Amino acid sequence: MNHSFAVVARRAALAGFLSLAGASVALAAEAGGDSAVSNFTLGNGLDVVVIPDHRAPVVTHMLWYKVGSADEEPGKSGIAHFFEHLMFKGTSTYPSGEFSQAIAAVGGNENAFTSYDFTAYYQQVAPDELGDMMRFEADRMRNLVLSQENIETERQVVLEERRQRTDNVPGSILSEELNATLYQNHPYGIPVIGWQREIEGLTHDDLKAFYDRYYTPNNAVLVVAGDVEADAVRKLAEETYGTLARGPDLAPRARPMEPDQKTARTVTFSDPRVSVPSLSINWFTPSHRTADEGEFEAIAILSQVLGEGLRSRLYQELVVKQGIAASAGSYLQGNAYDYSALGVYGEPRGDADLAKVEAALIAEIDRIKADGITAKELEAARTKILRDQVFLRDSQVRSANLFGATLATGGSVEDITGLPERLAAVTAEQVQAAARRYLDLSRAVRGYLLPAEEKRS
Amino acid sequence: MNHSFAVVARRAALAGFLSLAGASVALAAEAGGDSAVSNFTLGNGLDVVVIPDHRAPVVTHMLWYKVGSADEEPGKSGIAHFFEHLMFKGTSTYPSGEFSQAIAAVGGNENAFTSYDFTAYYQQVAPDELGDMMRFEADRMRNLVLSQENIETERQVVLEERRQRTDNVPGSILSEELNATLYQNHPYGIPVIGWQREIEGLTHDDLKAFYDRYYTPNNAVLVVAGDVEADAVRKLAEETYGTLARGPDLAPRARPMEPDQKTARTVTFSDPRVSVPSLSINWFTPSHRTADEGEFEAIAILSQVLGEGLRSRLYQELVVKQGIAASAGSYLQGNAYDYSALGVYGEPRGDADLAKVEAALIAEIDRIKADGITAKELEAARTKILRDQVFLRDSQVRSANLFGATLATGGSVEDITGLPERLAAVTAEQVQAAARRYLDLSRAVRGYLLPAEEKRS
Repeated sequence: MNHSFAVVARRAALAGFLSLAGASVALAAEAGGDSAVSNFTLGNGLDVVVIPDHRAPVVTHMLWYKVGSADEEPGKSGIAHFFEHLMFKGTSTYPSGEFSQAIAAVGGNENAFTSYDFTAYYQQVAPDELGDMMRFEADRMRNLVLSQENIETERQVVLEERRQRTDNVPGSILSEELNATLYQNHPYGIPVIGWQREIEGLTHDDLKAFYDRYYTPNNAVLVVAGDVEADAVRKLAEETYGTLARGPDLAPRARPMEPDQKTARTVTFSDPRVSVPSLSINWFTPSHRTADEGEFEAIAILSQVLGEGLRSRLYQELVVKQGIAASAGSYLQGNAYDYSALGVYGEPRGDADLAKVEAALIAEIDRIKADGITAKELEAARTKILRDQVFLRDSQVRSANLFGATLATGGSVEDITGLPERLAAVTAEQVQAAARRYLDLSRAVRGYLLPAEEKRS
Repeated sequence: MNHSFAVVARRAALAGFLSLAGASVALAAEAGGDSAVSNFTLGNGLDVVVIPDHRAPVVTHMLWYKVGSADEEPGKSGIAHFFEHLMFKGTSTYPSGEFSQAIAAVGGNENAFTSYDFTAYYQQVAPDELGDMMRFEADRMRNLVLSQENIETERQVVLEERRQRTDNVPGSILSEELNATLYQNHPYGIPVIGWQREIEGLTHDDLKAFYDRYYTPNNAVLVVAGDVEADAVRKLAEETYGTLARGPDLAPRARPMEPDQKTARTVTFSDPRVSVPSLSINWFTPSHRTADEGEFEAIAILSQVLGEGLRSRLYQELVVKQGIAASAGSYLQGNAYDYSALGVYGEPRGDADLAKVEAALIAEIDRIKADGITAKELEAARTKILRDQVFLRDSQVRSANLFGATLATGGSVEDITGLPERLAAVTAEQVQAAARRYLDLSRAVRGYLLPAEEKRS
């Protein structure tokens, strides 16, 4: 089973060597039929979103918990992600494997993922199976068996996952420490999967307290997308989730925030497994929740113009025109509660060295700061963001993902449906202002991934 | 009143531009008369150390709380240091100023300081006044008035202190972010004085909970040095501190520890107020408590040979022989519970640039790793550390400081008195091994303080 893909995606985004396909997910709106999306709350506090999609007889059932690694106590990193494993180990009602077998028996599939701000579980099945999925999912919200044996078994699985995906991957090692350098105070500096020694130290009591506190209907968002109607979903949800008792009322999430950073930093990892050097330049920015009105949209357009896709400035200038880079681009981390992150990256090609690529990346940033973007670029970026979300709507899972991630990070359905208007309101001046405000080199964190023999003193 | 000098000292040590005079304090042993030091515990858990010193009719009374900034909850930074101010604001028994007036009236002096691991208060007075000092100090351990008015007044004082000592001092700005980069997970990455916004956010409830939890006899160490005898001190302590109720039993301090770091990092601050550039290269090492047997002593000798004082390798090579540096040296942070920090630093002189000084610093480190140190250097370093502590013994306050800081960071009186034997057991091979193990450039954090116009791309 492929758990944790979101963990990997987030790490990749911050590594800065991949353009994250899902980066604009927080921005994608309903391409059409907005009125069809329903949003209601059960008596026990469970938030429910229904997204009818009748193109095929299939339904996506996702349950999002508003808890992620950034909600963990100090020294207990990895606990949110640990649950992504434990939740598959059986309940007092159904033994381990029964839920997964039921999905497999009807030809469905399932997965789970963890991020800084949420943990989500989903199944994709035929519409007739939706009630069963809800019954199983509601059951493991409250009746999970947290046996010491399950904990120890899954601890080894998680530790192996960490070794394979982080400790054995040079780009991930760099990404983890780059992140720890970018965030000086906020828990986004701590990896979602957790630090090895802290995963080793998690106790039954730690896990039990976390489960009791956060795995409750009033701390969750249910998203159902597919060949269903809202009324039927509501009825099923009330019969299953609706029977669960409300959990403790949680205070609004208040993580330690960043101080005013004033220094430029670099993080360098050299390793014999690296064959081609690469670099990234990273900043944190406000999130869609914390940004001033219109600012997050301006940042998203900035990232598009600067480096997302083959028509972006960075790609055209460094890869096509100058021919000094094998790849170059930018990425924007979406769907986060407190901060998003923006970065640019490049890999040299041919005779060009890393310094040349770095200078060219900076030149493009400086150019936007000095001269702004054109009306044509602004319009193209808007169109691309909106078009991306049309494609996204074609995927039921990604559509459900969009709503779940937005609601789990402090947004609303209206934040999604109102995107076209918000994008239309962004001016070229706002994009330039965002570049000047956030892409400040004196506060940037640069990451260098180098072959072992290469020295950068 | 000059509160917080330890805060400043610690910051200076990590800035790497000063050789910290107190760096070897954790190592300094009794130069003579070890048997005279008494250590006993009152019924309520107060640990008491008495260091008789009859050279002058004066006594130093220090109370050490085993709580510092690294014990603060996330998002509540600055709370430990805030108490260093609030403790002077009066109690339900004595109004604000009465304690300080009583000290001034008898020609005494007082001060207080906060570190990552402890908060200490002291007075120096004539021996006849000791009982009064104890009565006042015991009173404010339990009866402090935490009025909203006092809190708001002192908050402004603390914020102004932060502005003056950190935000307006380029070396301190660099130091703060260097520290945040050096420690990726441990709260030593958070400044002792606290982040500005978190100081602004501390509430009465935060302060009250902290006071009730940590300001208790069983979480404190009383150190009395001077013209007194242990029996008399015990009697006075029992009459004053001894009447206080024991506080809650605290679990052993367990802070989030560092992951295995694998990257080299740099932190650069450029500012028009900087006239001469400088750099430091920093590592964290085990503390005296967490080091393997003999290892902390080997690290202390390493720092001595490498860069402490005018006869050290760095000074002789960079300043005297090559003439490329206006200053060069090393420092070792002592008296910490979880980690110590070692750094080397240099400032260029004349035509030499920063890169030249940096290369020369690294060359000296590489030389110790490759060839070790000589028997003569080993002996000179041992002698210097022991001689430093003889001078230290001459200062009653520093002597009391040595015992208090050691006991407040998990050490014992024996850790101090046994130093000569432990130093004698360190071999040149152990010093070389410590250099190879800890001074790894691929994991170092370098700090650059630059004039605004200078670019280091």
